[in-house]
Amino acid sequence: MLIVMRHGATEAEVRRVIAVIEEMGYKARPMPGAQRTAVGLVGNDGRVDASRLEGLPGVQDVIHVSKPYKQVSREWKSENTVVRLGGAVTVGGPEVVTIAGPCSVESERQIIEAARLVKEAGAVILRGGAWKPRTSPYAFQGLGRPGLKLLAKAREETGLLICTEAMDADGIGYVAEVADIIQVGARNMQNFSLLKIAGRAKKPVLLKRGMSATIEELLLSAEYLLAEGNHDVILCERGIRGFDTATRNVFDLTAIPVVHKLSHLPIIADPSHGTGLRDKVIPMARAAVAAGADGIMVEVHPDPEQALSDGAQTLYPDQFAQLMREIRVIADVIGRRVAEPAGVGA
Amino acid sequence: MLIVMRHGATEAEVRRVIAVIEEMGYKARPMPGAQRTAVGLVGNDGRVDASRLEGLPGVQDVIHVSKPYKQVSREWKSENTVVRLGGAVTVGGPEVVTIAGPCSVESERQIIEAARLVKEAGAVILRGGAWKPRTSPYAFQGLGRPGLKLLAKAREETGLLICTEAMDADGIGYVAEVADIIQVGARNMQNFSLLKIAGRAKKPVLLKRGMSATIEELLLSAEYLLAEGNHDVILCERGIRGFDTATRNVFDLTAIPVVHKLSHLPIIADPSHGTGLRDKVIPMARAAVAAGADGIMVEVHPDPEQALSDGAQTLYPDQFAQLMREIRVIADVIGRRVAEPAGVGA
Amino acid sequence: MLIVMRHGATEAEVRRVIAVIEEMGYKARPMPGAQRTAVGLVGNDGRVDASRLEGLPGVQDVIHVSKPYKQVSREWKSENTVVRLGGAVTVGGPEVVTIAGPCSVESERQIIEAARLVKEAGAVILRGGAWKPRTSPYAFQGLGRPGLKLLAKAREETGLLICTEAMDADGIGYVAEVADIIQVGARNMQNFSLLKIAGRAKKPVLLKRGMSATIEELLLSAEYLLAEGNHDVILCERGIRGFDTATRNVFDLTAIPVVHKLSHLPIIADPSHGTGLRDKVIPMARAAVAAGADGIMVEVHPDPEQALSDGAQTLYPDQFAQLMREIRVIADVIGRRVAEPAGVGA
Amino acid sequence: MLIVMRHGATEAEVRRVIAVIEEMGYKARPMPGAQRTAVGLVGNDGRVDASRLEGLPGVQDVIHVSKPYKQVSREWKSENTVVRLGGAVTVGGPEVVTIAGPCSVESERQIIEAARLVKEAGAVILRGGAWKPRTSPYAFQGLGRPGLKLLAKAREETGLLICTEAMDADGIGYVAEVADIIQVGARNMQNFSLLKIAGRAKKPVLLKRGMSATIEELLLSAEYLLAEGNHDVILCERGIRGFDTATRNVFDLTAIPVVHKLSHLPIIADPSHGTGLRDKVIPMARAAVAAGADGIMVEVHPDPEQALSDGAQTLYPDQFAQLMREIRVIADVIGRRVAEPAGVGA
Repeated sequence: MLIVMRHGATEAEVRRVIAVIEEMGYKARPMPGAQRTAVGLVGNDGRVDASRLEGLPGVQDVIHVSKPYKQVSREWKSENTVVRLGGAVTVGGPEVVTIAGPCSVESERQIIEAARLVKEAGAVILRGGAWKPRTSPYAFQGLGRPGLKLLAKAREETGLLICTEAMDADGIGYVAEVADIIQVGARNMQNFSLLKIAGRAKKPVLLKRGMSATIEELLLSAEYLLAEGNHDVILCERGIRGFDTATRNVFDLTAIPVVHKLSHLPIIADPSHGTGLRDKVIPMARAAVAAGADGIMVEVHPDPEQALSDGAQTLYPDQFAQLMREIRVIADVIGRRVAEPAGVGA
Repeated sequence: MLIVMRHGATEAEVRRVIAVIEEMGYKARPMPGAQRTAVGLVGNDGRVDASRLEGLPGVQDVIHVSKPYKQVSREWKSENTVVRLGGAVTVGGPEVVTIAGPCSVESERQIIEAARLVKEAGAVILRGGAWKPRTSPYAFQGLGRPGLKLLAKAREETGLLICTEAMDADGIGYVAEVADIIQVGARNMQNFSLLKIAGRAKKPVLLKRGMSATIEELLLSAEYLLAEGNHDVILCERGIRGFDTATRNVFDLTAIPVVHKLSHLPIIADPSHGTGLRDKVIPMARAAVAAGADGIMVEVHPDPEQALSDGAQTLYPDQFAQLMREIRVIADVIGRRVAEPAGVGA
Repeated sequence: MLIVMRHGATEAEVRRVIAVIEEMGYKARPMPGAQRTAVGLVGNDGRVDASRLEGLPGVQDVIHVSKPYKQVSREWKSENTVVRLGGAVTVGGPEVVTIAGPCSVESERQIIEAARLVKEAGAVILRGGAWKPRTSPYAFQGLGRPGLKLLAKAREETGLLICTEAMDADGIGYVAEVADIIQVGARNMQNFSLLKIAGRAKKPVLLKRGMSATIEELLLSAEYLLAEGNHDVILCERGIRGFDTATRNVFDLTAIPVVHKLSHLPIIADPSHGTGLRDKVIPMARAAVAAGADGIMVEVHPDPEQALSDGAQTLYPDQFAQLMREIRVIADVIGRRVAEPAGVGA
Repeated sequence: MLIVMRHGATEAEVRRVIAVIEEMGYKARPMPGAQRTAVGLVGNDGRVDASRLEGLPGVQDVIHVSKPYKQVSREWKSENTVVRLGGAVTVGGPEVVTIAGPCSVESERQIIEAARLVKEAGAVILRGGAWKPRTSPYAFQGLGRPGLKLLAKAREETGLLICTEAMDADGIGYVAEVADIIQVGARNMQNFSLLKIAGRAKKPVLLKRGMSATIEELLLSAEYLLAEGNHDVILCERGIRGFDTATRNVFDLTAIPVVHKLSHLPIIADPSHGTGLRDKVIPMARAAVAAGADGIMVEVHPDPEQALSDGAQTLYPDQFAQLMREIRVIADVIGRRVAEPAGVGA
């Protein structure tokens, strides 16, 4: 950490900065310059709270040299984390995984049919919300625990793995019993109480990027999970808030190579939420794979017009099949392959 | 709600939109125009999920005419909500309230001293975090329940009311026992599980605007509280995410008159988080009062340099006293007055 | 256009809105509803200035149903615009074009060498700035007219077409003499005086999206060019301003399918400015092609470490050659092909 | 400038950074640390182009310690710049100036009436556009030079000073002849060709902040003006682009104390564009003065409903008079006073 003093800061001000650094248990290394003095803080383990220093008289700026996260960083662990799910499916290795299914679990018939359709097209993991975070209290909030049972049934019938969201402590418990991946949604990315509980669950966690989260904040939220002992973390880019109403979100695909450089954790992309528009999902799913995503998560419904939520961004089954065909070739271009469901071709 | 068809949409496409609207239980009113047809959806109570319509063939745009919130709106209740706290303190009436104190409760001595100082300068409510949502898992996370006890003690000693944050279901229970206002922080504005529990607590709630929340989303989160039966809701503008690193956040003071027009709920402003910089707090607190805020929330510490969190944006006691003097005059300009603590001058 | 009245708006207020609409030369069509009245404005040709209506008493919202642009829209012209450049190079047809070269023209040796290298790898158009818009007045501002002469020389030597930026009226004149494409940069996207002049130039224009421009604003700026008679317009996504300092800009690739739906104009992508980071350029160039871009624009320098501007985002020649190999396969996946320079293989 | 090396950067990589720094004509000062090495660049005058360093192998980050601007900074000149206009009016001294008038000059009657009304209420400078930058080519573009003549006439009749916008080189010439302040609009803040010409004009310049400009970029654009010899520069906060459609822009009032700390230049605020909504203008104008603005710029029209542009954000004359009464008291609270027109009370 580097504390930059203002041009014209007094010697007393510099000495005070040094004293505070030493009081905090670190070493101070003053560096007088032509225009101004800077003071290096040495011994920083990425956990220093800079706010005491920022407000001291004569201080112009506090510059963070070390990253504030630790266990999630490439410097901590240089090889990729490969999250192993049931049935030989892995995330973060050479395979590109596909998570597909409806926004919400609505009925037995709907979820079983969706599972069959997405498996047939090549998905290996079924998505479907039992609890739905909805902006309005009057919108459909999901079936809750009965929805989880339907997901379990869909797994039995198809062999697909299950990924579904939990929104609170109780939900984490229920979801961990049934699902293969516990999803923490964008709105809960900085729900630190939830992160701590998810960090103690014995299941992989899919952590979605918050709508206004920097990549550093995403990695710090992942650090909460690792700090509690859960190393099976998959990140997900799902669009950030922007100023243009032409799309629901700004789908920030550059996050993929950025995360791959900073962290060993896998990152997938969700073009359904990333764009919010059905006819943008296919081109942006292709783009995600081309950018190096470790997987994609896509909303597919047997009959999108009847969907109780997110209908406008949900693919028709034949669109999803087309998408799968296209991303297989693109994965190949960059030396990867799209994971295929166990039963197919067996 | 208005469904705008694309130029050149077929009659069959228009008929299908009409059919879906009727299936959803509403009336459809087609409006053929020179360039394109629009279909009005009538009987909408603000609870319609538009996504089924957005994705239909031939649909260009779905336009929301009614607001999606209801009980929080001015149209639902035209007179201002006045939240009555203990003592004779009210929020949303003619008085401008001041909530002040340290970011975190750190020790008995610190919080009692802070309470005395802010009361002396004219604050009526003491703030101080027992649980702190921190971006990094390695940052100070608050004292927890012992911190709540220290806040209770500070109230006994000074008569100040207490406002403190809860981050999960258990926390809501503990905070509701001790505090006069339960704070739901910016990162939890869309933690809908938490909102539902806070909506059933028997204490007023201070709901902070999320970092990338629109005002409509803020009002919808408040609607969760009212829908559960809690009508004592105070909103808080605390800065939104922006592109300029010159300040911690963009302090969106226009939110104050915007909320006052759309809703009957009171709204206060937090210039400490809104700017993140100590020397910007005084001018922006003045600006908040000038813009019509029903109160301000300010971080003050007996010794900011020793603060365990947010030191850089925390006022020195004498700065806070100056701020109080200035906002008293500004409140007067717009026909209001700054609330004074009960004991003072008695 | 739809003028939505407030719940409880008086009849007099509705009548006044109708009167103003008629005064403006349009027809008013009142639509009384259960909760509120709306007034349709009919006869709107996309040129109505809504501001007179927005401020009238009783008006809650003015909703634009028609798009404000006209000649650039798909509704105006349904087939793709194919911009024909010299040689047989086209933009907007089945071929994906590559524009490559250094940020700035620095010397004869540098630009000739760059031209040869990028042609060898497969680029068909050479980029290079003679005038550079620089945030700081003290940064290198480009060689000016001598730079244009060097570009002309590079064209002679390699047969590559030339694309270079003009920043003012004089510049447009000089660039139009030498270049095959006149670039209007992101900072000038709403420099309407410049757009009018470029609209009268007899050369194709590459219009870059402004840093905070919506896609509608980008299309309206293009409309300025078409309205002056220049129909050879190529749009360019180059990243928009975001809140995360991890990348220089947010590269909004969804803009590509969005523009393709709304407009007949071609759109290319610039991953060099879009990301600002060399090692992000290759994955994001692949992603751009996968998303359907009609071309890419990439900064390449014979020796990036010696570049006078934008060095950090500039590719080494061998990186560019690798990129070309990868995008050829991706273009193929979506039924397109990467344009090849005339001389190669001849 | 500080070049931070990656953890595990090789010695050869560090030596190369040092070599490039020396090649650029600066001194390198390596600082080996516990976790990584940093290299200080000494002798930096704020003009270093970092891009050559950012892309070198082993470099993690380049951190700017010095500000890139110079003459506009407080460190260059510590006392406030006071811009002296005709008739004893100053900007940047103890007085708060009011610039008011219609968005566009529409007719002789309109501008003369507007001038009389705003002077009567207490404005000292008349605004009114002769050239209007409009998003759509089909919107009213201003009267041009005849509009300037009408402004000159309004000045003769009322003694008010004139502030009006120029959009290109010719416009600067015409405006400089007639007006007391040349306005450079938000969309042209980074039109560097225009800035260079305005920097050579012999008239004060009002430079509006671009919609997505950081404060540092605003100051760098001002530096263009000072670098050309024009020191009479007034900055203007007018709202930045945000994600919430509830207001036209996000009015970033914290920019006022931020600019006052970094620069000696005066800064005013434009609540009309800052909010885009008439009933938000009064509270936000009060807030601007409370935040320390050196002036405000407000749209006022004798009959806003007839305005050819920006009607929805334009005040009625009596609203403007009320605003003036309120800001006089607020200016007083912070030790300033609102400038009064010469003739009044004389």
